[in-house]
Amino acid sequence: MRLRNVSNKEEILKSSPFLIPDGKVYYGKWNPLFKNKNPIHLEIGMGKGNFLIEMAKRNPNINFVGIEKYDSVVARALVKIPEDLTNLYVIRGNANEIEKMFKHEIDVIYLNFSDPWPKARHSLRRLTSPLFLDKYDSLFKGDYHIYQKTDNRDFFCYSLLSLSSKGYILKDISLDLYGENRESVPTEFEVKFHDLGLPIYYVEAIKEK
Amino acid sequence: MRLRNVSNKEEILKSSPFLIPDGKVYYGKWNPLFKNKNPIHLEIGMGKGNFLIEMAKRNPNINFVGIEKYDSVVARALVKIPEDLTNLYVIRGNANEIEKMFKHEIDVIYLNFSDPWPKARHSLRRLTSPLFLDKYDSLFKGDYHIYQKTDNRDFFCYSLLSLSSKGYILKDISLDLYGENRESVPTEFEVKFHDLGLPIYYVEAIKEK
Repeated sequence: MRLRNVSNKEEILKSSPFLIPDGKVYYGKWNPLFKNKNPIHLEIGMGKGNFLIEMAKRNPNINFVGIEKYDSVVARALVKIPEDLTNLYVIRGNANEIEKMFKHEIDVIYLNFSDPWPKARHSLRRLTSPLFLDKYDSLFKGDYHIYQKTDNRDFFCYSLLSLSSKGYILKDISLDLYGENRESVPTEFEVKFHDLGLPIYYVEAIKEK
Repeated sequence: MRLRNVSNKEEILKSSPFLIPDGKVYYGKWNPLFKNKNPIHLEIGMGKGNFLIEMAKRNPNINFVGIEKYDSVVARALVKIPEDLTNLYVIRGNANEIEKMFKHEIDVIYLNFSDPWPKARHSLRRLTSPLFLDKYDSLFKGDYHIYQKTDNRDFFCYSLLSLSSKGYILKDISLDLYGENRESVPTEFEVKFHDLGLPIYYVEAIKEK
């Protein structure tokens, strides 16, 4: 994520009703926060929010939570959220602490255009590494359910192997989401990479509890 | 496989010491046929034999068996086999009957550039369909171990999902074998498709017994 400073980010972060400054505060209490028992979908690394906000608009009976670590990026997402949206919150926080934020409350995780960390010695920082998949185990309420999109071929192959090694069954795969005319709610990166003519890789994986 | 008639195919089939006209005859007796206890690797749909013959030359301590249904193609493979090769046999036969030919005797199966059967209503004819994967179960001696190469993207994705659904763990994947400078013993199709600039897809999958 390229960072461009947002001049009034402090003010945005302070005043937005959609921001959760510390996700750990709601550990085990997310459904009470949403005031319903609807399923909760989590996007780790939500960026500027296009995907999650659009998903929240389209699916009023699903609760959405996004997590993003950079203040400037969080601020850019927050300003885009329609005031009347009641099924979306944004956590400013680090994915490394994700297991301290949710206690078997999540139905679906989205990993969209996560940092591929191309160097082998950084592989455990990838959000589909065995290390992170282990962390996610304690997030899920029922079956484990992950959707990933990326433009990075090597990261995609790594993810397929990692998910498979952890017992996930691959339910759907595309090596060219747009070439296959699949429906997709795009992220900012997705629009950019697709416009450059790059294929978008996609996988849905499920592990029964 | 495009069929070109071989004028003296009857003669070749009759005289080759490497041909097994009926694979069912050796059900449970393949290691005695090879006169050793070495592992047996099977290529289903061996085509004109380049891959299997080269593999047999390079790996004298592994026994190789290929199966191919078309007489003309079998004949073309047979004439290429060096006379002194002792670790290779070719079955003229149909993959549909594969489970009648081997009784827990196979260590590895290779599926190279198999017919993709692109129409959905023919999907069960694909050699990685759940139907065929079930057949293979009774072929394997220990862990189930399959290597696949193909130029067909949709068939490749189908195969990943099918293998995963049957409990195979994906151990290695490439979406561009040559672009990644991987070592590969090429088949006839592989040379042709690579020369056309197409990516070659590759997967290794294992299921513990």
